[in-house]
Amino acid sequence: MNFALIAYILGLVLDIEAGCMVLPLICSLIYKENTASMWIICIAVCLCLGLPLSLKRPKNRNLFAKEGFAVVALSWIVISIFGAIPFFISKSIPNFIDAVFEIASGFTTTGASILYDIEALPHSILFWRSFSHWIGGMGVLVFLVALLPKSGGDNMYLVRAESPGPSVSKLVPKVGVSAKLLYIIYVGITALEVVFLLFGGTSLFESLTMAFGTAGTGGFAVKNTSIAGYSPYIQWVITVFMILFGVDFAVHYILIKKRFKESPSEEVKVYLTIILAAATLIIINCSKIYPSISETIRHGFFQTASIITTTGFSTADFDKWPEFSKAILVALMFIGACAGSTGGGIKVSRIVILFKSIIKQIQISAHPNRTIKLSMDGRPVEHETLRAVNVFIAAYILIFVVSVLIISLDNFNFTTNYTAVAATINNIGPGLDKVGPAHNFAEYSNLSKIVLIGDMLIGRLEIFPFLILFSRKTWKK
Amino acid sequence: MNFALIAYILGLVLDIEAGCMVLPLICSLIYKENTASMWIICIAVCLCLGLPLSLKRPKNRNLFAKEGFAVVALSWIVISIFGAIPFFISKSIPNFIDAVFEIASGFTTTGASILYDIEALPHSILFWRSFSHWIGGMGVLVFLVALLPKSGGDNMYLVRAESPGPSVSKLVPKVGVSAKLLYIIYVGITALEVVFLLFGGTSLFESLTMAFGTAGTGGFAVKNTSIAGYSPYIQWVITVFMILFGVDFAVHYILIKKRFKESPSEEVKVYLTIILAAATLIIINCSKIYPSISETIRHGFFQTASIITTTGFSTADFDKWPEFSKAILVALMFIGACAGSTGGGIKVSRIVILFKSIIKQIQISAHPNRTIKLSMDGRPVEHETLRAVNVFIAAYILIFVVSVLIISLDNFNFTTNYTAVAATINNIGPGLDKVGPAHNFAEYSNLSKIVLIGDMLIGRLEIFPFLILFSRKTWKK
Repeated sequence: MNFALIAYILGLVLDIEAGCMVLPLICSLIYKENTASMWIICIAVCLCLGLPLSLKRPKNRNLFAKEGFAVVALSWIVISIFGAIPFFISKSIPNFIDAVFEIASGFTTTGASILYDIEALPHSILFWRSFSHWIGGMGVLVFLVALLPKSGGDNMYLVRAESPGPSVSKLVPKVGVSAKLLYIIYVGITALEVVFLLFGGTSLFESLTMAFGTAGTGGFAVKNTSIAGYSPYIQWVITVFMILFGVDFAVHYILIKKRFKESPSEEVKVYLTIILAAATLIIINCSKIYPSISETIRHGFFQTASIITTTGFSTADFDKWPEFSKAILVALMFIGACAGSTGGGIKVSRIVILFKSIIKQIQISAHPNRTIKLSMDGRPVEHETLRAVNVFIAAYILIFVVSVLIISLDNFNFTTNYTAVAATINNIGPGLDKVGPAHNFAEYSNLSKIVLIGDMLIGRLEIFPFLILFSRKTWKK
Repeated sequence: MNFALIAYILGLVLDIEAGCMVLPLICSLIYKENTASMWIICIAVCLCLGLPLSLKRPKNRNLFAKEGFAVVALSWIVISIFGAIPFFISKSIPNFIDAVFEIASGFTTTGASILYDIEALPHSILFWRSFSHWIGGMGVLVFLVALLPKSGGDNMYLVRAESPGPSVSKLVPKVGVSAKLLYIIYVGITALEVVFLLFGGTSLFESLTMAFGTAGTGGFAVKNTSIAGYSPYIQWVITVFMILFGVDFAVHYILIKKRFKESPSEEVKVYLTIILAAATLIIINCSKIYPSISETIRHGFFQTASIITTTGFSTADFDKWPEFSKAILVALMFIGACAGSTGGGIKVSRIVILFKSIIKQIQISAHPNRTIKLSMDGRPVEHETLRAVNVFIAAYILIFVVSVLIISLDNFNFTTNYTAVAATINNIGPGLDKVGPAHNFAEYSNLSKIVLIGDMLIGRLEIFPFLILFSRKTWKK
């Protein structure tokens, strides 16, 4: 293990975090809050540790898989701990574990909260909370790779460990250029959403924070009622952008490049089909709840898009919907968005691969001597990808079960515990019952909160970077 | 598809079912019930269809994988429909779908019931209900293979489709002899349990029915309070035998043959470790519920053994236990017993294989160029086995989710629906909340009951024999 390199990268990550904190500092100055000095302290803390580490450039800059995975996992732990400091010293969140829960929920784009009264917080704190979604959505290390000149090591491992999905789609052969392009598309679509939201009459502050929450598929809002208090126009804009941010960014790149003929992505087709089917079923099932059809349609599409993209915004308390609609939402929680998007969950492409492997197995059961190849988008699915998908599912289930077991010690009911883990490991936000859209995660014990913080991080980084930390072999020199 | 052969085997299966019904007929004569003529009618119905089909021996008796899987699935549908007739015409269960639910629950060794007052039923009906566990536990087609002389075709496919677990362990090279040995061990241990139960003072009728429920890991009792009303001695006897019937029968064979040195089965070790760990945690968690420690220990071990072996007997209403204990029981529902036992669930060996594949993937993530082999009991796990395990899990999850969605239309809560599917697809019996040990499945709609009947059959035959029925290619001549 190349410890010097790991320390160097962690230092750079802290420098970036300090840089990110400049934005809420500006926000606090605009709103003339008494939090400005607090932000300067936080920035100083990050730099005090970050600069010394990042100034010592290690001689050996070879980054192997092991280091790549480990440093990504460690980076996310570090940004969560340092990102929690503003909540803690501003006394917005007096319990430090709660503060880490809130910011980990932000960076991992979960959107699960322990706060009862969001509107009581200063603007700069709310900005930081929402901005963390945007940073975490595309990823801190992808940002780092976009900035860094290619430097001997293989930065691909960093991108691979941080990007969601069973295989990494590089937009262009060079990983640094790919990372830059990803961020350019990300900034572009976010800016477009801000413009649409401003057009609907919301303030710049609200437009920015809502766009951050949508872009990262996070779900933190700046109102206690999430998105319910906004106009139907705003709700539809957010619905459309949630769906857009749940699409593989490689598809956006192809569309922008006007290479329409290339790659009619199977995953995106399935993703859109699921949204349409789920929303339709929910609309039929909830037809008697709302006064008008247009309102039912709006809530149906908003909540479907919000859950499948793992954003977690809400316009309605879906915990009060009929059980069939709730069961659909729970199923969507696990499916998640497309690989290569900012969304969480298992990812549509993994589901498609699993579905195809079932059909293959049926054919093999009937004709044991046939050989059948799995393919996706016209290309064969490599054996390594299939194995990784299968093992991902196994590890996912294992972590899920262990998490439910531990948080059950708090004696909340099964639905609450099950959906609390589902909502955190899939980076969604709200679950059902005591963690439903009208409630929050505050009542869980510190132990449960630590487990759920772990689930958020494990879910965001798709398990393996974290599991590697627990392998003894990883720490050998 | 060899339709003549399928018809022939289905005919034989009906003949066997008619033969099985002779026992409840004798029971009705002993207890001088007015059901004797009803039993004779049921036997006649089975034979009227079975004999003509089974007398025409087809010329081509080659049994390929496709036919093997399809005929096993069809056989289980047929025995469930014909097995429901006694319930229906005796008016013990006036709704035919309920009657099929009850007997499918019996044959699949689930033990989920739609009956409110079991004790009101005639002895012969209760006997049939419990005896169906015993028939289904080891399997009707395994019985057929044990009876039939080897006849050109490859009966291995029948045993493979009906036996639980990722790979079939043949006791001896000849499949017919293996099937005979399995039934001899099965009868032997069942008889041993009957002796132990008689020794505890229960009547022959109760001893037999309880032993059938234990041996098949079914869970139908003849008392409304399941096993709660029996003495601690009886409860401990059943605990021990439930654990024994959850063990791979190949291990019993080896122990009987006194080949102690051979194969220290990893699966059995893990199975016993899980039982010990789960029971201990439950005993600690429930320590304040029962008046004495000995009672807590007894309920802890009984319920752990009952759920992991997927028997479903109960001595306590575990739906009232703390959430942690309930979460443990829900986890055990999925783990299930050992492959090659009469128990259901995912099976310990599949869990072990998945766990090992996770560790392998961690090592591969860290060192992409290493090749690592999975092994179990000192032998490498074949690629086909691993693939089958992975696809099994994928198909299992898919069927699980779709089932929960459909039964959610009845608008019961999430815990009820989730555990109803878990309790049926894993062949356990009781779930939590409205399907907990103190309740039953009667309130579900007919649609939901059909879905749950499907889950029981799919769970018992481990999915693929059923999925093959839905493939168009299966039905080509």
